[in-house]
Amino acid sequence: MTKIKKIFLSEDEMPRQWYNLAADVKTNPPLGPDGNPISPEMLAPVFPMNIIEQEVCQDRWVDIPEGILELLVRWRPSPLVRAYALEEALGTPAKIYYKNESLSPAGSHKPNTAVAQAWYNKEFGIKRITTETGAGQWGSALSFACSLLGLECKIFMVRVSFDQKPFRKMMMNTWGGNCVASPSNETNAGREILAKDPDTPGSLGIAISEAIEQAVTDPKGETRYALGSVLNHVMLHQTIIGLETQKQLAKVGIKNPDIVIGCAGGGSNFAGLSFPFIHEKINGADIRVIATEPFSCPTLTKAPFGYDHGDVAKMTPLLPMYSLGHTFIPAPIHAGGLRYHGMAPLVSAALKNELIEAQAIHQLECFESGILFSKTEGIIPAPETTHAIASAIREAKQAKEEGKEKTIVFNFSGHGLMDLVGYEKFLTGQLDDYELPMEIIERYLAEIKDYPKPNFV
Amino acid sequence: MTKIKKIFLSEDEMPRQWYNLAADVKTNPPLGPDGNPISPEMLAPVFPMNIIEQEVCQDRWVDIPEGILELLVRWRPSPLVRAYALEEALGTPAKIYYKNESLSPAGSHKPNTAVAQAWYNKEFGIKRITTETGAGQWGSALSFACSLLGLECKIFMVRVSFDQKPFRKMMMNTWGGNCVASPSNETNAGREILAKDPDTPGSLGIAISEAIEQAVTDPKGETRYALGSVLNHVMLHQTIIGLETQKQLAKVGIKNPDIVIGCAGGGSNFAGLSFPFIHEKINGADIRVIATEPFSCPTLTKAPFGYDHGDVAKMTPLLPMYSLGHTFIPAPIHAGGLRYHGMAPLVSAALKNELIEAQAIHQLECFESGILFSKTEGIIPAPETTHAIASAIREAKQAKEEGKEKTIVFNFSGHGLMDLVGYEKFLTGQLDDYELPMEIIERYLAEIKDYPKPNFV
Repeated sequence: MTKIKKIFLSEDEMPRQWYNLAADVKTNPPLGPDGNPISPEMLAPVFPMNIIEQEVCQDRWVDIPEGILELLVRWRPSPLVRAYALEEALGTPAKIYYKNESLSPAGSHKPNTAVAQAWYNKEFGIKRITTETGAGQWGSALSFACSLLGLECKIFMVRVSFDQKPFRKMMMNTWGGNCVASPSNETNAGREILAKDPDTPGSLGIAISEAIEQAVTDPKGETRYALGSVLNHVMLHQTIIGLETQKQLAKVGIKNPDIVIGCAGGGSNFAGLSFPFIHEKINGADIRVIATEPFSCPTLTKAPFGYDHGDVAKMTPLLPMYSLGHTFIPAPIHAGGLRYHGMAPLVSAALKNELIEAQAIHQLECFESGILFSKTEGIIPAPETTHAIASAIREAKQAKEEGKEKTIVFNFSGHGLMDLVGYEKFLTGQLDDYELPMEIIERYLAEIKDYPKPNFV
Repeated sequence: MTKIKKIFLSEDEMPRQWYNLAADVKTNPPLGPDGNPISPEMLAPVFPMNIIEQEVCQDRWVDIPEGILELLVRWRPSPLVRAYALEEALGTPAKIYYKNESLSPAGSHKPNTAVAQAWYNKEFGIKRITTETGAGQWGSALSFACSLLGLECKIFMVRVSFDQKPFRKMMMNTWGGNCVASPSNETNAGREILAKDPDTPGSLGIAISEAIEQAVTDPKGETRYALGSVLNHVMLHQTIIGLETQKQLAKVGIKNPDIVIGCAGGGSNFAGLSFPFIHEKINGADIRVIATEPFSCPTLTKAPFGYDHGDVAKMTPLLPMYSLGHTFIPAPIHAGGLRYHGMAPLVSAALKNELIEAQAIHQLECFESGILFSKTEGIIPAPETTHAIASAIREAKQAKEEGKEKTIVFNFSGHGLMDLVGYEKFLTGQLDDYELPMEIIERYLAEIKDYPKPNFV
């Protein structure tokens, strides 16, 4: 064989530092209930102090502790794969590469931060981590991470997903996690809501409230809460994706790709691949960086940049970000991980600074792209991941029109083996496109119009 | 990090030949309905001639065509992984390695032969492949393989599994396969059975009959049938597993392991890992090779060696193998891939020649081992794979008792993400052990007592 398809790094070649975009892009601080910047101490009941320090860290490069490297090598470095068969099907002169994050035991990029967060919690003496999960990707990843470190893991899973996706719950339980439907009878927040509405389908906002309540009310102080996206330290942990990719491209003589693509919900897999390339861009490289989102949740393409809460229940600080408004109720599209109303402050700052561009794509085009990928490259992508694939295919077709041999890299954030119902519906014609109308967006935004405005341009 | 966990081969280092145990172990020929050895021509309506030639091939080394190598590199070479965390949990001086075959797009070792068979069929001018599937692993793998080569794929899935495991069907359809419940209305065999018993749950025997009927009755002659285990050419294709493993062990200075383990249903993943080591053993190496099966289907440990049909409907030739009798009805254990009444003739010959040993393990010990593996190494194993893990754990404990630093290698044949119901039942105490009683085995065996006897000792 003359054509090498998968570019591997050895474990020895794994990056030893994460890249921190906060060193290169100005952000505004999170604000507390009084409208003033929150202090690290205010977060201490929720997160361990070593993670809080990382959240506010401004260092450009952050050492990855040896203990975390030893957890990451369970599945990392992940291969960078040349999509020869997809290129051939498209007849494009573009070289398409994808970073295959679907090979982790939980099937996505989420474990990159899950093992890091679990490790920091353990270092800090924490015995138990609580979290929420929607479709279940994050809860699975954290349950996996806690099992490796012998930590207890409690997951509040939005009831409607808990009932619809029993396999996700079983995954978490197999790793020793304790997954319950939210609202539950285990917290004040949950009991109050159940008293009012025993048949509520639940929501991420409610699940977050329950998870935080259990963390901060542990009388022994041995419990903390963990979040799978949005926050700076989560973005930081995910940059290992892009840092590995740079080393892998170098092995085939590519200094920088022309185009870098990731799908964006809360922002973590997009940030993971793209931030190290944005660092190159800041230093003069000519790279287009594209964040792809669904038309049904067009945070980056249609929402304004401002302060908003991260959750419906307003338990989080006000974060500076693109947001559809925290009361946003997403349509039931299949890309569950892309239905978040806000966007990570660091990703938001990158867009505000025109370091990245954003693109919204319809569900049907995404599934069509996912099917083409499945039949050419062979791996069935998660519905979220099909958004990145759809963008990559658009760019590859554009390169064909222009007759240019561009290098396109996208993040294959996860496999779709737990999301096959979406494919079945697509194949049997039961899926529709849905575009969130501007008048509905305006209604959500009206509720946050009096919130503080970020300072930077 | 001083400890390298995953031993990789580059694509350039992939083996270029398969190993054929038929060159080193004497077997008896398959017999036709008249009791005489069947000729290649008799199989021509069922398989393409290039596969039939491979089925009867006696060459020790068989070149892997370049076209098949290019398909295999979609996910191969697979990593050989040192199970440090499992070793630590067991406190064993043994070095445990597992060959991770779960990273293929279909999640198991099955694609190794699926892409090879699809390629040979295409070379022969075949446009469409039919097959049967029980739990769905094989049907998924063949659907995946056919999609890569642009072949049509028709899968008859045992109705009870079709209804219970809708996700498997969705996987096959996503890759463009056409999966129908068997018995179906598409074949004479299916229609006859449905006329008698419209509510039949179906069986592998019926599904095989339907798949073969559709292959041999294609008026254009463009359809052939494919089988995912048992036959010699399937074992041959799987030997890439063990051949890679040998190269990987050499990289860490291990010429031969002390113990090689695989779970055995039809025999293909066991053969894949073990046959190249059996070749070393024939040439003087001191290696124990263990095939692990469930107590509920104890083909190697309790059945006699003799001639039997491969299917309930007696459509296949008589094969020389250990068999519980083709009328055997398996208990509904969760390791669906280990419920086959017979065993590949080459694996059977290896046992008959005392080149391997066999072990039966109870379902509960297997799931317990699977949970320990999930919580230490992080990957949730398929129920079939937990049998190999259980044997490896037994041997590692034995090494601890003996204070010996043995090297144990087992085949991690597949992940369990599509089989989580078994784990859920285990964790909630709803699983039982089941041992097939000798008197029932004797009843099945009585039906084949007058069959021809193989010649060799």
